[in-house]
Amino acid sequence: MAIQRRDILEAAQRIVATYGLADLTMRRLATELGVQASAIYWHVPNKQSLLAELADDLLGRVPEPSPRRRWDRQVEQLATGLRTTLLGQRDGAEIVSASRASSLDTSHLGKRIVEIVEAGGHPHARAVASRDALLHFVIGFTFDEQSHTTMVEHGAAPTRFGDSDASFTAALAIVIDGIRA
Amino acid sequence: MAIQRRDILEAAQRIVATYGLADLTMRRLATELGVQASAIYWHVPNKQSLLAELADDLLGRVPEPSPRRRWDRQVEQLATGLRTTLLGQRDGAEIVSASRASSLDTSHLGKRIVEIVEAGGHPHARAVASRDALLHFVIGFTFDEQSHTTMVEHGAAPTRFGDSDASFTAALAIVIDGIRA
Repeated sequence: MAIQRRDILEAAQRIVATYGLADLTMRRLATELGVQASAIYWHVPNKQSLLAELADDLLGRVPEPSPRRRWDRQVEQLATGLRTTLLGQRDGAEIVSASRASSLDTSHLGKRIVEIVEAGGHPHARAVASRDALLHFVIGFTFDEQSHTTMVEHGAAPTRFGDSDASFTAALAIVIDGIRA
Repeated sequence: MAIQRRDILEAAQRIVATYGLADLTMRRLATELGVQASAIYWHVPNKQSLLAELADDLLGRVPEPSPRRRWDRQVEQLATGLRTTLLGQRDGAEIVSASRASSLDTSHLGKRIVEIVEAGGHPHARAVASRDALLHFVIGFTFDEQSHTTMVEHGAAPTRFGDSDASFTAALAIVIDGIRA
């Protein structure tokens, strides 16, 4: 039976969930699926494309905000939803960071942030800058949280004191105040 | 002649500058220095410690802002100086991201941002949240720029249109507006 693109994506997600992103190779993917590497290359030409597919899938899972809420609350919901989605996949922030140079600005999520900020009465250039500030902050923050988790697992760092959710909320409020300003 | 901690740091910087962070291994470092790996482990017990030293060295190079300027201009100077410093070292943002979970909050740079925002009349908790928003944004933005450079070098992405300096300045203005708010 021929493998489908969806099978490849799911196998890649299982490998990352179990072993981490560093262990995701095209070879390991072929072994996991029990096929020749050539069967994979037909769907996904290289690791960079695979990362882009994983990132698109993750970003696509961020819930759409409630349209009845005020624009700044919608932006807050998107940012919080992005962090929760990234934390739900091992090395999620690294996957998005590694692939975003090619796709994030043009992602559905990036476009939605620009639309919502514009709908709040801001000019396009400011909406674009708001998207950049917001996405880099959320992904950077979550990358740090996930790196720390990995380091603790490897015994390379002590468990951090403090409430990560509260730190995120407080720093996100600063960025959103800036968008509103 | 015994090697010094400084020799190890400089050799690590040369390897990263020439081959990239992915190629920095303790073994390669020993070869570069023409010593046994044991001579390195005596100074730096593992790769995580080496990354922390590289990160501390980078962060230590960010120029101190002019004390005569208003607090918000000082914060802007630190953020801009951080980006310029990271861009000056290949994979600079990745080095800091990879090690920051253990050290950034306690870094001199992190402390200076908190002090400057507090000196601007803000309560401590808000100064801490401002530091988090600012550092995650700057490092995330620069990480993206450097990933993109690597992808272009490998032919994995087209050159991006647009002015990266202008995008950074516009998004930084949003974050600083938020700190000021």
